[in-house]
Amino acid sequence: MKIKKQNLEKMLIKIFMKHKLDKDHAKLCSDALINAEFVEAYSHGLSRLKMYCDRIQKKLINPKPKIKDIKITNSISLIDADNSIGFVAADFAIKKAIHNAKKTGIGLVGIKNSGHYGLSGYYAEQAVKKNLIAMIFTNAPPAVAPHGSLKSLFGTNPICFGCPSGSKIPFIFDSSISMINRGKIRFAARENKKIPENVALDKFGKPTTNAKRALQGVQLPIAGFRGSGLAWMVDILSGVVTGGNHAGRVKDPFDDFSGPQNIGHLMITFKSNIFNIDFNKRIKENIKIIKKLPKIKKVKKIFYPGENKFLKFRKNKDRLINLNKKTQQELKALLD
Amino acid sequence: MKIKKQNLEKMLIKIFMKHKLDKDHAKLCSDALINAEFVEAYSHGLSRLKMYCDRIQKKLINPKPKIKDIKITNSISLIDADNSIGFVAADFAIKKAIHNAKKTGIGLVGIKNSGHYGLSGYYAEQAVKKNLIAMIFTNAPPAVAPHGSLKSLFGTNPICFGCPSGSKIPFIFDSSISMINRGKIRFAARENKKIPENVALDKFGKPTTNAKRALQGVQLPIAGFRGSGLAWMVDILSGVVTGGNHAGRVKDPFDDFSGPQNIGHLMITFKSNIFNIDFNKRIKENIKIIKKLPKIKKVKKIFYPGENKFLKFRKNKDRLINLNKKTQQELKALLD
Repeated sequence: MKIKKQNLEKMLIKIFMKHKLDKDHAKLCSDALINAEFVEAYSHGLSRLKMYCDRIQKKLINPKPKIKDIKITNSISLIDADNSIGFVAADFAIKKAIHNAKKTGIGLVGIKNSGHYGLSGYYAEQAVKKNLIAMIFTNAPPAVAPHGSLKSLFGTNPICFGCPSGSKIPFIFDSSISMINRGKIRFAARENKKIPENVALDKFGKPTTNAKRALQGVQLPIAGFRGSGLAWMVDILSGVVTGGNHAGRVKDPFDDFSGPQNIGHLMITFKSNIFNIDFNKRIKENIKIIKKLPKIKKVKKIFYPGENKFLKFRKNKDRLINLNKKTQQELKALLD
Repeated sequence: MKIKKQNLEKMLIKIFMKHKLDKDHAKLCSDALINAEFVEAYSHGLSRLKMYCDRIQKKLINPKPKIKDIKITNSISLIDADNSIGFVAADFAIKKAIHNAKKTGIGLVGIKNSGHYGLSGYYAEQAVKKNLIAMIFTNAPPAVAPHGSLKSLFGTNPICFGCPSGSKIPFIFDSSISMINRGKIRFAARENKKIPENVALDKFGKPTTNAKRALQGVQLPIAGFRGSGLAWMVDILSGVVTGGNHAGRVKDPFDDFSGPQNIGHLMITFKSNIFNIDFNKRIKENIKIIKKLPKIKKVKKIFYPGENKFLKFRKNKDRLINLNKKTQQELKALLD
């Protein structure tokens, strides 16, 4: 079944409002989910809708959060998200980080008592549109084993960096430190599809391409000890520093209903021309030089991070949105 | 030949002073090089001494730099290092970053017109000792091909993150985004040793374990497009943002005497307890939990980043320092 964006948006807002979110918060959630569908990050889109609603119903996500905005300095803020849905916490926080950077040149915002917020790049984009550079870190439920250990503890802990590109398409690097996004494994498990080789082990430590077995096992970090170190860094920046959960205590939103997630995030923003240079001119030149490099066979074009997602967004934004059977059933049940 | 630390230090200071550095700058350089030997990062130690001296003699490194400390705000500074040797620029900059963070909670310091400064972790440690969190980025001469391209352009562009660990040994993650440090390939080439498989290609794009051929070819980034994206991020943060060279224009210090390097660095520092938590208590717990995880076969202990280097430092710091023949000859020639 295919559906118009406007109609899907109405349905999603209705569903979130039925789950007691205010209208503006419901709209934020709907926007983030639809954006994920447009950029074809399906693992962060509608496939998560039921999970969010389940957690609200079980009182693990607070639909009416009293978000505390704790001012540390004009540059630095701590946001206590009061177990809000992650989308709402992250949107509040990036706006604060933008405000602080615009006012003082730099913003540092820690967020605690938050939840899964979808794609980091979605928030980085907001800052980039204001001519800021943004770095965003978040931890996540255990998925990746620390180097040398047999047990998952780190999340896929994405590292996100965004900056203006000097053109319409922002430079947004947003990558998990695992060989594969956990959401992609979930999505494959849901759709009964295989996952690539060498990205995960089953619970006995054996390599597997079976998505369900991979979910019970361990995901592999990129580049051994280097990826493990990056994951540890992200756990410290987003969890240890902010007062959020850390060291494997972030609960899996799909499987663990024993309490709220209390995910932590950290956002760093600063003015791209803070050091008295013409950033847009310099980055444009940087990208131009790299794009002109000789290419390996079969590569027609070198893309900068974020370009691909943007092109998908542009391709899809005026088209009908495809709803698979499972999603149709879930939407129907949530609307009833 | 083995030599006492004190005697090596005297020799190095004498050599740098002969090359017109002030005594305090000569001492800084000597300290950094000896530290690299102690932590067994030989590619960043004495094997580079002659290169630094050559570049001073060819007037590509300025032995008497007039370093400009440009205040942007109380948190933010731009350092124009006036083509100083990298050690001097980085030491000046980290002290500024510490000062700014102590004063306002956060420090952001951009450095331009700098050069190769050895190990990022060496500077991060200074901030960590003051209970700060530090992130340090620097670009470097072309070594790694952007994803999809056939030509080296990114440096090995290390990402460095340091924080207190709640114990004597600081948490210092300091990793290049290439499969192998370029310094290690240089060191292998110098010593006629092989390099591991799957870390580099020769100039024709073929895999090689020959260090000299690898230096003429391309190094592989970690994790394909992810490592390439991280390298690009570091080039932007350290080069594009600061006014330093970028997009492959940083000159190779060993091979290219056509001008100064104009490397850029970026340092971000902030108070570890800025969000009203007891950071040392939380990080201690974090590390304890991870160290207690079940281990894979033959792994006796899980190390956190920086622990291994610190243990090497402790083991070596009171021992005699080994000088190989080539280094002995170089030292002798530089002292003559």
